[in-house]
Amino acid sequence: MLVQLLQHTREPERIIAQAAKLCYSDAGLETIAGKLSPEKTADFIRKLMKWGHLSALEHASFTFGIEGVSRALTHQLVRHRLASYSQQSQRYVSMRDFPYITPPVLSEKPELLKSFQTVISEIGRVYQELLESGIPAEDARYLLPNACETKIVVTMNARELLHFFRLRCCHRAQWEIHALADRMLNLAKGVGPNLFHQAGPGCINGPCPEGKLSCGKMSEVRQKYGGEGS
Amino acid sequence: MLVQLLQHTREPERIIAQAAKLCYSDAGLETIAGKLSPEKTADFIRKLMKWGHLSALEHASFTFGIEGVSRALTHQLVRHRLASYSQQSQRYVSMRDFPYITPPVLSEKPELLKSFQTVISEIGRVYQELLESGIPAEDARYLLPNACETKIVVTMNARELLHFFRLRCCHRAQWEIHALADRMLNLAKGVGPNLFHQAGPGCINGPCPEGKLSCGKMSEVRQKYGGEGS
Amino acid sequence: MLVQLLQHTREPERIIAQAAKLCYSDAGLETIAGKLSPEKTADFIRKLMKWGHLSALEHASFTFGIEGVSRALTHQLVRHRLASYSQQSQRYVSMRDFPYITPPVLSEKPELLKSFQTVISEIGRVYQELLESGIPAEDARYLLPNACETKIVVTMNARELLHFFRLRCCHRAQWEIHALADRMLNLAKGVGPNLFHQAGPGCINGPCPEGKLSCGKMSEVRQKYGGEGS
Amino acid sequence: MLVQLLQHTREPERIIAQAAKLCYSDAGLETIAGKLSPEKTADFIRKLMKWGHLSALEHASFTFGIEGVSRALTHQLVRHRLASYSQQSQRYVSMRDFPYITPPVLSEKPELLKSFQTVISEIGRVYQELLESGIPAEDARYLLPNACETKIVVTMNARELLHFFRLRCCHRAQWEIHALADRMLNLAKGVGPNLFHQAGPGCINGPCPEGKLSCGKMSEVRQKYGGEGS
Repeated sequence: MLVQLLQHTREPERIIAQAAKLCYSDAGLETIAGKLSPEKTADFIRKLMKWGHLSALEHASFTFGIEGVSRALTHQLVRHRLASYSQQSQRYVSMRDFPYITPPVLSEKPELLKSFQTVISEIGRVYQELLESGIPAEDARYLLPNACETKIVVTMNARELLHFFRLRCCHRAQWEIHALADRMLNLAKGVGPNLFHQAGPGCINGPCPEGKLSCGKMSEVRQKYGGEGS
Repeated sequence: MLVQLLQHTREPERIIAQAAKLCYSDAGLETIAGKLSPEKTADFIRKLMKWGHLSALEHASFTFGIEGVSRALTHQLVRHRLASYSQQSQRYVSMRDFPYITPPVLSEKPELLKSFQTVISEIGRVYQELLESGIPAEDARYLLPNACETKIVVTMNARELLHFFRLRCCHRAQWEIHALADRMLNLAKGVGPNLFHQAGPGCINGPCPEGKLSCGKMSEVRQKYGGEGS
Repeated sequence: MLVQLLQHTREPERIIAQAAKLCYSDAGLETIAGKLSPEKTADFIRKLMKWGHLSALEHASFTFGIEGVSRALTHQLVRHRLASYSQQSQRYVSMRDFPYITPPVLSEKPELLKSFQTVISEIGRVYQELLESGIPAEDARYLLPNACETKIVVTMNARELLHFFRLRCCHRAQWEIHALADRMLNLAKGVGPNLFHQAGPGCINGPCPEGKLSCGKMSEVRQKYGGEGS
Repeated sequence: MLVQLLQHTREPERIIAQAAKLCYSDAGLETIAGKLSPEKTADFIRKLMKWGHLSALEHASFTFGIEGVSRALTHQLVRHRLASYSQQSQRYVSMRDFPYITPPVLSEKPELLKSFQTVISEIGRVYQELLESGIPAEDARYLLPNACETKIVVTMNARELLHFFRLRCCHRAQWEIHALADRMLNLAKGVGPNLFHQAGPGCINGPCPEGKLSCGKMSEVRQKYGGEGS
């Protein structure tokens, strides 16, 4: 899995602070910006997060390039509708010698792993046969497995990212999208340290939102994400 | 493929006409409704469509139950973000003896079809083996192909449906989602005959939106969908 | 203020239960529906609400007709973006003898009330003068006050309605939109008693989301909305 | 009216080109980026616009600071739902000596202008009186007119901006939001010259979308916006 922060709104915390302050101020934008030293911005962003006043977070967007993930993952990912996607097409791009993702659980079971790999090879062979016989890629791909690798560019704003991390950094999320969310969170923290300093699964700032379905590992989880409970 | 219109806003054309008329009237909602005979409603809805004043169409929603379609199709479908989805989960539901979709192009080529079916059987066998060895369904499903059948409930409002039909009834759309869109269009016409009487691909009411990439079959297409050009 | 539930998805709880069950079942839609007696539906909807699994709630939409509210209210209302609106236009409809909303706080202060009414009359007189002098309604309306009455049709799905009630039934919301939200909630409860039986401000099922900015009247509020804490 | 481009996605055309190319390429993101010289990027963006393949445009966002516009304008503006807003609140900010917008049509009619200004002064006087008598700002503001100035921060992505310009640069849009759209378009062109080089009302690249309601000034309009027809 290769995850990059390709682009983002410049100075995301500053623009968020400026916009949020506008709502409650009779000063103009220039005046508000003039008072936003880096320290004051950081301080204000942390307060905003505490109050849960999140609408101004939408002014900062983050664009990630994601490669080497499965189509199983992207089928989950694109269900987040407040986001923008550009994905490598299986209709227009033929997946010759297609790379694929192997679930980690199989690496501990050599025999099952071998069965898995054998079927994947067989899929690859017949997929090629179909293409070479003139079957369009869009039809041949019906054979391709969820494991098949794909590439996708995703843009989310900071508010939606927080929501995404809340769901997908949860211990109950599938391992692959969980790993993606962790990487995205680290990259986002790099440019928005105050925005994302308490980002993570729902349990790090309160009770587990899953209730009875809780994973029961909240203290570990909180430690990992630096939540208040840790 | 089994497509049903499970539910919808009652009297969709009437509520749309009432809401649209409100924008330009100084009368109240009761008064507006009182004048909306079925004939006047039908007539007004057709005018509204001609003017392209589509925002009031959002007041009517349609919920479809879709079964016996491939995961290839739903990966395309869920990219329409102004809609709501509930899909059968491959994480929580084990696909024992999983049914699958065969691209029609294969049915004309018996040898390729056999290769296709043989690999699918092999996938099924190993998928079972993984499940029986204790691999979680969410990991075993990495083997499952795009052809794998799924079930999904979709809700769109009338405005989004028009947009969906515009893209997915197009001759260039993939055959499977095209067939789905055609079924949905027929069902929608049953309860919104004036809303959808000229619904279909972009070309039926103007030049082909694909420009140079046009399929070149506009006269056939227009005839099928009853466009103005037919 | 006149609030009506103009239309809605038929049998909203049933379609939501059917869609939600699909996600975790290997049965088809027909089979799922066959088992949904009214009692089982009600029971399942209440469980769904408890688990916080809200995505299937989007399949049910509700359309409200709202009359006799101020433009101050609608400027707040239309900020909810996951909704559809048709509003009486001040550009196309001349507000002759325009009705207006008086803030209740003024009714206790006769002198201030009189000042308020005098200015409103004066606004009305000059607005008429502008119109009669040939000034377009879209320009004359620059004089019209926030108090000016308007009419609007609003459609939200059940998930968005819950969110709307959470914010706008809060004691800290402005009195007018709070009153609107209360009326909408009562109407929604009429057709979705289990969906909305614990709907209301954020505090009724947990700590006040406003934290230090809390109104401090949570026990009253919980009693009003029938929250768990009552 | 003061309009500034406060922030935006860095190198918007480059990220859009990179994302769009990913869909149809078997190369990775690094390789794609390596081939994107400024000339090739510009050329590709213009092709993308011609094809109408607009989804990748969502990866670039633009944040505008807008001051000195009326509440009449912002009530129209916030109806665009695929956007993010932070607006100066009339509930929390008291509009002492509130500035206001005068419709230009009045400046040619001194007597009407005087009536207009007199009522506005009177509104201001009573608004102050209410505040000083302890009426909360959220209630006193019921008197404030649509003309009242406001400040707002708006974020839209490039795709939504094109749609916004299409509607609001139209000759039939109200003069104030039309002027705003023109300023935003100029600012957007500064950082996305190829993205926006044919942006503007619907008529500049085809027939007037208003049909019979057309303003009849398409040749002037096309000349102003540099459309193909000019």
